[in-house]
Amino acid sequence: MHLVTVRTAAGTRAGRVEGSEIVLLDHSDVRGVIDADGGIDSAADIDGDRLSLAGASLAPVIPKPDKIICVGVNYADHVAEMGRTPPEAPTYFAKYARALAGPHDDLLLPDPDHTSHIDWECELAVIIGSPVRHATSEEALAGVAGYAVLNDVSCRDWQRRTTQFLGGKTWEALTPLGPALVTRDEIGDGSGLNISTTVDGVIKQASNTDHLIFNVVDIVKDLSRIMTLDPGDVIATGTCGGVGAARTPPEWLAPGRTMTTTIEGLGQLVNACI
Amino acid sequence: MHLVTVRTAAGTRAGRVEGSEIVLLDHSDVRGVIDADGGIDSAADIDGDRLSLAGASLAPVIPKPDKIICVGVNYADHVAEMGRTPPEAPTYFAKYARALAGPHDDLLLPDPDHTSHIDWECELAVIIGSPVRHATSEEALAGVAGYAVLNDVSCRDWQRRTTQFLGGKTWEALTPLGPALVTRDEIGDGSGLNISTTVDGVIKQASNTDHLIFNVVDIVKDLSRIMTLDPGDVIATGTCGGVGAARTPPEWLAPGRTMTTTIEGLGQLVNACI
Repeated sequence: MHLVTVRTAAGTRAGRVEGSEIVLLDHSDVRGVIDADGGIDSAADIDGDRLSLAGASLAPVIPKPDKIICVGVNYADHVAEMGRTPPEAPTYFAKYARALAGPHDDLLLPDPDHTSHIDWECELAVIIGSPVRHATSEEALAGVAGYAVLNDVSCRDWQRRTTQFLGGKTWEALTPLGPALVTRDEIGDGSGLNISTTVDGVIKQASNTDHLIFNVVDIVKDLSRIMTLDPGDVIATGTCGGVGAARTPPEWLAPGRTMTTTIEGLGQLVNACI
Repeated sequence: MHLVTVRTAAGTRAGRVEGSEIVLLDHSDVRGVIDADGGIDSAADIDGDRLSLAGASLAPVIPKPDKIICVGVNYADHVAEMGRTPPEAPTYFAKYARALAGPHDDLLLPDPDHTSHIDWECELAVIIGSPVRHATSEEALAGVAGYAVLNDVSCRDWQRRTTQFLGGKTWEALTPLGPALVTRDEIGDGSGLNISTTVDGVIKQASNTDHLIFNVVDIVKDLSRIMTLDPGDVIATGTCGGVGAARTPPEWLAPGRTMTTTIEGLGQLVNACI
């Protein structure tokens, strides 16, 4: 099942994709569907209004997660290009919900006097479906509602201002998330998926989630030692090689460029920079 | 005004401290008071039930902020003891709301097989009252609703597992916040306040917020370049020297120890470790 959060005149609504249409559901967003009694499966039974998918304005599929947890340095080729050593444990940093953008939203780049080294990072996003705490591998996977595409757009100058990444990672409305939550029954454990970023149609990043150093189950298990993962939480699993910062010369997003982020089976984010 | 969030049989309620009593307000927590039309000032006019302050079970004063933003390496003596160089810009990392504990809650320490280097960090917490974006100094201060005490309890082994602090900073229910939001009219810009941690009555940290490298206005201004700060957001401004990790030998929290965190004018957190 593909679930989306769509903007309507009366606010956002959750919807289920059926062919070229969105069947609207009785929740304000996909997190509401996850949280409802019976969860995602019961949502399939509600029938409502329909919208054309092509004409819909999609919001971030989870507009306001309690947590956005990002994993850094989690593909071997990206570790090498950033001059880091392969990690013995997953590297975690955060974004806040204010960072999210819709899957087709224009990205309003910040004032270049504030930051100008704005980079792409295609990532497989995991969306939690039920509380996960001190999980076994089986429990970790069972806690995953599904997956989406996220581009962890990063302001490298601010990311490198200090030792901690957060200040370069959580700029307002620069992190597209969507287009849909694709449920786990279609995707399994998130392995074996081709993932890429193109800018103006030129491939910049291309890899496969088989190359994750820590896979989805590893990450969910490890995080559940630290704290409870809650329904709607988003985990961005890290990016592969090919980021702009590692190119010679470095290459950045700029007004007029269009970034396309694709994961096999999950769809595409298409974001014009303005 | 001192505002608290108190646990009742029917869930949490916001309250205003009057002498030895709490006057309950018509909001489920202090964030509701901040968000209400008219904000904190209008809350003073609602009269309701009263509770004894001494017998009350206080929740984290903001139980579920959208953002908890922490500033690292922000007192010169703590920078030196941790072997870091003085920063040219504020260092930011995050906690999630799941990390918060009430001001008098017992802290249930994690399984020592998972983490055993659990340390104290007394910090002045800023609570945002109205949206702040691209702020001037005046706007930054005007966006502050008030202040509270926070202890940024840190699992040093996990903090140092990778380059990024988050994994050691956001352990479940180990970060007490409270006891009250003390409004800005009583505290001003947060400077000149004595701040300390004692463990079992022995002073471990003692400083003054005058020694912050980046002060409250600096931090709020800088963060507002990155994103909108929202009502109820919590900013922990960093800790001073005297943490357990910097002692010889290192010293950690353990079951049976009681940590007391005090800031002049804001009150005290008293947390027994179990």
